[in-house]
Amino acid sequence: MKPAIEHISGFQTAGVHCGLKKNGNLDFALIVSETPAQAAGVFTQNLVKAAPVLVDQEKLRRTGGVVRAIAVNSGCANAATGQQGIDNAYEIARYVAEKLGCHEDQVLVMSTGVIGTQLSMDKIKYGVGLAVDQLGKNNWEDAARAIMTTDTRPKLASVVDDVTVAGIAKGSGMIAPNMATMLGFIVTDATLNATDVQAMLHRATEKSFNRIVVDGDTSTNDAVLLLANGRNQSPLDESVLDIVCHHLAQAIVRDGEGVTKFVTINVHGTKTNADARQIANTIATSPLVKTAFYGNDANWGRIIAAAGRAGVDFDAARVELRVASVDDDELMLVYQGTPCDYSEQQATEIVSQPEFIYTLNVGDSDGHAMIWTCDISHDYVSINADYRT
Amino acid sequence: MKPAIEHISGFQTAGVHCGLKKNGNLDFALIVSETPAQAAGVFTQNLVKAAPVLVDQEKLRRTGGVVRAIAVNSGCANAATGQQGIDNAYEIARYVAEKLGCHEDQVLVMSTGVIGTQLSMDKIKYGVGLAVDQLGKNNWEDAARAIMTTDTRPKLASVVDDVTVAGIAKGSGMIAPNMATMLGFIVTDATLNATDVQAMLHRATEKSFNRIVVDGDTSTNDAVLLLANGRNQSPLDESVLDIVCHHLAQAIVRDGEGVTKFVTINVHGTKTNADARQIANTIATSPLVKTAFYGNDANWGRIIAAAGRAGVDFDAARVELRVASVDDDELMLVYQGTPCDYSEQQATEIVSQPEFIYTLNVGDSDGHAMIWTCDISHDYVSINADYRT
Repeated sequence: MKPAIEHISGFQTAGVHCGLKKNGNLDFALIVSETPAQAAGVFTQNLVKAAPVLVDQEKLRRTGGVVRAIAVNSGCANAATGQQGIDNAYEIARYVAEKLGCHEDQVLVMSTGVIGTQLSMDKIKYGVGLAVDQLGKNNWEDAARAIMTTDTRPKLASVVDDVTVAGIAKGSGMIAPNMATMLGFIVTDATLNATDVQAMLHRATEKSFNRIVVDGDTSTNDAVLLLANGRNQSPLDESVLDIVCHHLAQAIVRDGEGVTKFVTINVHGTKTNADARQIANTIATSPLVKTAFYGNDANWGRIIAAAGRAGVDFDAARVELRVASVDDDELMLVYQGTPCDYSEQQATEIVSQPEFIYTLNVGDSDGHAMIWTCDISHDYVSINADYRT
Repeated sequence: MKPAIEHISGFQTAGVHCGLKKNGNLDFALIVSETPAQAAGVFTQNLVKAAPVLVDQEKLRRTGGVVRAIAVNSGCANAATGQQGIDNAYEIARYVAEKLGCHEDQVLVMSTGVIGTQLSMDKIKYGVGLAVDQLGKNNWEDAARAIMTTDTRPKLASVVDDVTVAGIAKGSGMIAPNMATMLGFIVTDATLNATDVQAMLHRATEKSFNRIVVDGDTSTNDAVLLLANGRNQSPLDESVLDIVCHHLAQAIVRDGEGVTKFVTINVHGTKTNADARQIANTIATSPLVKTAFYGNDANWGRIIAAAGRAGVDFDAARVELRVASVDDDELMLVYQGTPCDYSEQQATEIVSQPEFIYTLNVGDSDGHAMIWTCDISHDYVSINADYRT
């Protein structure tokens, strides 16, 4: 796995500045497959879906997932924009299709940024023109930059094996399981049919993008798209797709808004995996837990308290909690529901590191879950209090 | 209604410093009814319940709610403290009962503070002695101060009508519906039987303490207790109890950790009140919504997005959202799911005030809910990152 992308047979990209971002940064990306690719998408479960999500879902239904290009803008989410927003999303696809010489249904669109503002179509069209002119095999980093919002760095990953799998992603706030302001675009030269591409993307997403929590908010826009262009006759080893998605998902948390800590939450011993997931999510979204992470405070009481309000039944007298560093220094903090006689200094040393792991065991059943999350810092508040100003 | 308490017939209180708080502030309170009072309690729904919650629930069952005294310490929650914590809670009650000359089952105990640390029983016993010596009719403010943790001011309320109802409360973080690190102690000289006192407290709590959200966390300790000593033969007008609970609940939000804004969230048009409550809670606990409050930003997109992920079905194309100041300046921000042509400056003026109201309408059914909440500020992060240091 490399946190970068070299060229991939049959795919071209571009990332340009069309004026949606006031600071002059790249704000429009184009990912083009030279021949029709088989595509699948996983979209936000928010009831309030952005126009491009609705439009892409419609297009994928209509074409059975045959896609030539994805056009993505940052700076404006095209969400809560009514019929005009829908019309604009279709219009972008039509304009890109015209420039590329393909059917408009084969162009997907995606937007990220502020909700409730209409897209400037003049700027978008200017961006399409620029991007089509600049299409090339080696522009993946530009494309990754063009989809950033509050991200501080572009997120890329690729594995070159029998087949190549590569992807870019963005997202740093409003991240929660079930696809929150998070975009991921993954391409491969493998040959996949419509059923497999959708099934593989679902499974890979479940193990990666749906495991990350920054602030528990779920966006109106989020989507992960996978395009397989079939240039390579070898089958896709699913674990390679997993590796790319895994890296991109973790990169999103590590670059979360104001993040100073990357924390893994493991929960074991519940009746079902869903129960474990619910406890892990409740811990990972608790502001008190997240501020304790930020404060280098092994305040396990907040973790136990969050578990207790997760709505999952367990015996509080059986709870065990451990904290560990990535170097395998591990401390048992709570055993059978009561605090252990551990060294507070040693616990503080572990949680003062930029990455650590809490493991909670609430019983002897087989349910388990793992979630990747982060702290809430002063910078998180600053970034989100001032986002539109 | 007065935000203070004068003497109430048959009740005496004290607030002293026994050494649990390192800064020398008051940390132990005693509320004593001179004769057996009829009591009711509403307790945290967290699965992980602090020792005093378990002990009080047991005592109330055993005595049918006959209570002479409540002993409350701050500085240590006596939660996740195992059998020793339970034993200590019983021991405090026994010690108070001995000093007051009543049965130990008639003494309730409550604790608030850090989780996972055992109480220093020497300090508590010293506090009991001091408090019993200082019991008096005019110590309510001392008692209110002695139960404070990160509160910046004591919270008191009373109404003198045909009967008197008075209460004190604490709590500023870990506040969510369903009783989060929040303690409320309410007394009245009215005559109430066991059934009525419990029913009235439940109804009053539902309309007050269960409507407040600071950070969405739910504590292991929280409790509201109501004591009626029957000195006054007049019946209790339930609305008077509501007024006292209402004031104390709002006072908790207004004094929330780092709070700069008091925000009312109204949700209308759902199929059931529970649906409306669920949407209102999701909005009120969203870190993105709360940081926008802090940033004086009428970022309604985040409110709509939070509503959309609340798990309640509604038609996004019918959503209406208004923001209003307490002086009745009102702006329609969203109509039929799309942004209105409102003045952003006027919206900013409203949400720059210390108090404002969002009203969300998601349909034409009769379900509705109101929640009181607040912003998340830099100070919230500072307070909770540094709480144990």
